[in-house]
Amino acid sequence: MITLLTDFGLRDGYVGTMKGVIASIAPATSVVDICHDVAPQDLQHAGVAWGAAVPYFPRGCVHVAVVDPGVGTRRRLLLFRARGSVFLVPDNGLIGYVLSRREIRDVIHIKNRRYFLPEVSATFHGRDIFAPVAARLAAGLEPSSLGPSITVYRRNTLPRPRRRQVQKRPRVVEERGEVLYVDGFGNVVINIRPQSTARFRRLNGPGFEARRLRRTYGDVPPGELVVFVGSMGWLEIACHGGNAAEVLGWSRGERISVRWG
Amino acid sequence: MITLLTDFGLRDGYVGTMKGVIASIAPATSVVDICHDVAPQDLQHAGVAWGAAVPYFPRGCVHVAVVDPGVGTRRRLLLFRARGSVFLVPDNGLIGYVLSRREIRDVIHIKNRRYFLPEVSATFHGRDIFAPVAARLAAGLEPSSLGPSITVYRRNTLPRPRRRQVQKRPRVVEERGEVLYVDGFGNVVINIRPQSTARFRRLNGPGFEARRLRRTYGDVPPGELVVFVGSMGWLEIACHGGNAAEVLGWSRGERISVRWG
Amino acid sequence: MITLLTDFGLRDGYVGTMKGVIASIAPATSVVDICHDVAPQDLQHAGVAWGAAVPYFPRGCVHVAVVDPGVGTRRRLLLFRARGSVFLVPDNGLIGYVLSRREIRDVIHIKNRRYFLPEVSATFHGRDIFAPVAARLAAGLEPSSLGPSITVYRRNTLPRPRRRQVQKRPRVVEERGEVLYVDGFGNVVINIRPQSTARFRRLNGPGFEARRLRRTYGDVPPGELVVFVGSMGWLEIACHGGNAAEVLGWSRGERISVRWG
Repeated sequence: MITLLTDFGLRDGYVGTMKGVIASIAPATSVVDICHDVAPQDLQHAGVAWGAAVPYFPRGCVHVAVVDPGVGTRRRLLLFRARGSVFLVPDNGLIGYVLSRREIRDVIHIKNRRYFLPEVSATFHGRDIFAPVAARLAAGLEPSSLGPSITVYRRNTLPRPRRRQVQKRPRVVEERGEVLYVDGFGNVVINIRPQSTARFRRLNGPGFEARRLRRTYGDVPPGELVVFVGSMGWLEIACHGGNAAEVLGWSRGERISVRWG
Repeated sequence: MITLLTDFGLRDGYVGTMKGVIASIAPATSVVDICHDVAPQDLQHAGVAWGAAVPYFPRGCVHVAVVDPGVGTRRRLLLFRARGSVFLVPDNGLIGYVLSRREIRDVIHIKNRRYFLPEVSATFHGRDIFAPVAARLAAGLEPSSLGPSITVYRRNTLPRPRRRQVQKRPRVVEERGEVLYVDGFGNVVINIRPQSTARFRRLNGPGFEARRLRRTYGDVPPGELVVFVGSMGWLEIACHGGNAAEVLGWSRGERISVRWG
Repeated sequence: MITLLTDFGLRDGYVGTMKGVIASIAPATSVVDICHDVAPQDLQHAGVAWGAAVPYFPRGCVHVAVVDPGVGTRRRLLLFRARGSVFLVPDNGLIGYVLSRREIRDVIHIKNRRYFLPEVSATFHGRDIFAPVAARLAAGLEPSSLGPSITVYRRNTLPRPRRRQVQKRPRVVEERGEVLYVDGFGNVVINIRPQSTARFRRLNGPGFEARRLRRTYGDVPPGELVVFVGSMGWLEIACHGGNAAEVLGWSRGERISVRWG
């Protein structure tokens, strides 16, 4: 099984073209779309979506992510082996949102043009390299045939919150984080993972304060904002029946602080 | 075969995540997308789209609809058996747009956590409950294993037009209905199903009157509005080569009256 | 394998409905989406996307394109045999963007209602004719069963650039073309295919001049415009990390001239 995540959208034929290449080489392989409406060239958007979905797939997948602002430049294309699957991705750091350094078994620099389409364009490696290589891997090709193992590669990570003690007795800790992601519902995802929901004291962001951590949307009346631990394990702010990012006027990077006591 | 209808969009990894869960449990099952760009939490939108598509699928499907404003609250998740297929849906009334009470053979309250993912979040039951349950049903699980049969559940229905006689000889009947749905082309779908197209006299809505019922877009010149019986069996107003809802300035709920004579 | 290209979007259930019809008739057939977010009834948009994707699919496909402003009128539905595959398309010229006259082996006027759904609406032939016919073809139906061979059909073509010599020694040739397509990234595709990239002298359009032909986005600093030979073989203008069509304020049809020397 091959999974695809791109920023190609469904307005053009780019995703369909990749599926055509895959079908030509490995017709029995099923292709699953993770998502294609990633904001153009937005690695963090792609990374959060990819990181949320990949753990739910079985072992033995070929996971392909084509969000590739550097296409055609000297940036390399890499194959990562981890979790019993392989990951094909440009060497632009995207892998770091999905795999920790520890779980990466092997990294291969994809160089062997024998497995590419005969003509390789400078601007559509999804079609000319990723798709044929993914199809061949799905059909049993050994990753090591694609090129040499390497050890140095780019690996972005999500921004981490800072943590400091603001009161000793009783102990109060403040975490300063930020908005990582705004999803299609307008839910605001924050880079803070609660250790103990019971110790939540308050969350503050520009023009907003919450003093209660809830479980879900319906815990507040329609139209109200609500803070809970979202399905990805991070704090989220949502609006029951509405769009929290619009209500708050926030976008990615907004500064958030949370106190735990 | 599993079909999916959600309001998740393709901007995030939510649909892909559900497909990962399904592939992990029932790798040979094919998953068909009905649509994912339902307006957020819009049950009537979801219902019209689901109701239009489902009758065209073969028996033996697992139809899953995740439009679920009440996720994580005490609203139940239900399985309906009807038409030789099963339907998984929150108990929010959505089933009523697709199945009549008469054709529902059995309703099961999905409770058996054994068939869920080990950890169930409060805000993404699509991933944690719907997807694994659908996969297990596709792999042969008996619906009765999921929980007890119930008899009381929510069932929304589309608003019905009112009908009255406005003239006796010759007999003229007026139906007062409303706009049910505006599709992606801007076609305006009205909750009136013609019994006899020959007896159409006129249609009136805010700022608009039509005196002829046509067959299709091309029956009028480009740019003109046209009324016909749409592919779902309801009256529709379209604009040849344009967007009728924009031209008319209408949205869902707009009041419409039609006279038949 | 059946491929689908439509302007139906994913907001409604239309694409899902077609997949239901196909699954009912030919459950083992895989259906691949080329794209569904074609601008409504925009044949040139559809044609460029279809033309870019189709060559990458294997032989033996049933390629279906439903962009059909004339649905329900007397326009015919046609089947084209070419390149070892079949193409189902309304007789609105769309086929011309994908197939040359020379490579078309046979054209059939799809008339045999036996292979349609029992009830054929006037406005959704995708569901009532294309989908069941495609499914039956995928299941082995002979194209000739669908209706008579014909020889006259509509065939749109992309606008062609004009070429003239503007200087003799050294020879300088000017091509006057236009913007064919703006893709989802805002890349501007021009109907000029370079014969020799080395002889590029300059490109001019409203308010823009480029004197260098590059290879890819990353050959210029972020935010700058760049001209290269795109993945479809045409000249493209892109903006590194941005949206060229927005930066330039251009849309389809904008006049472009290029000098080669």
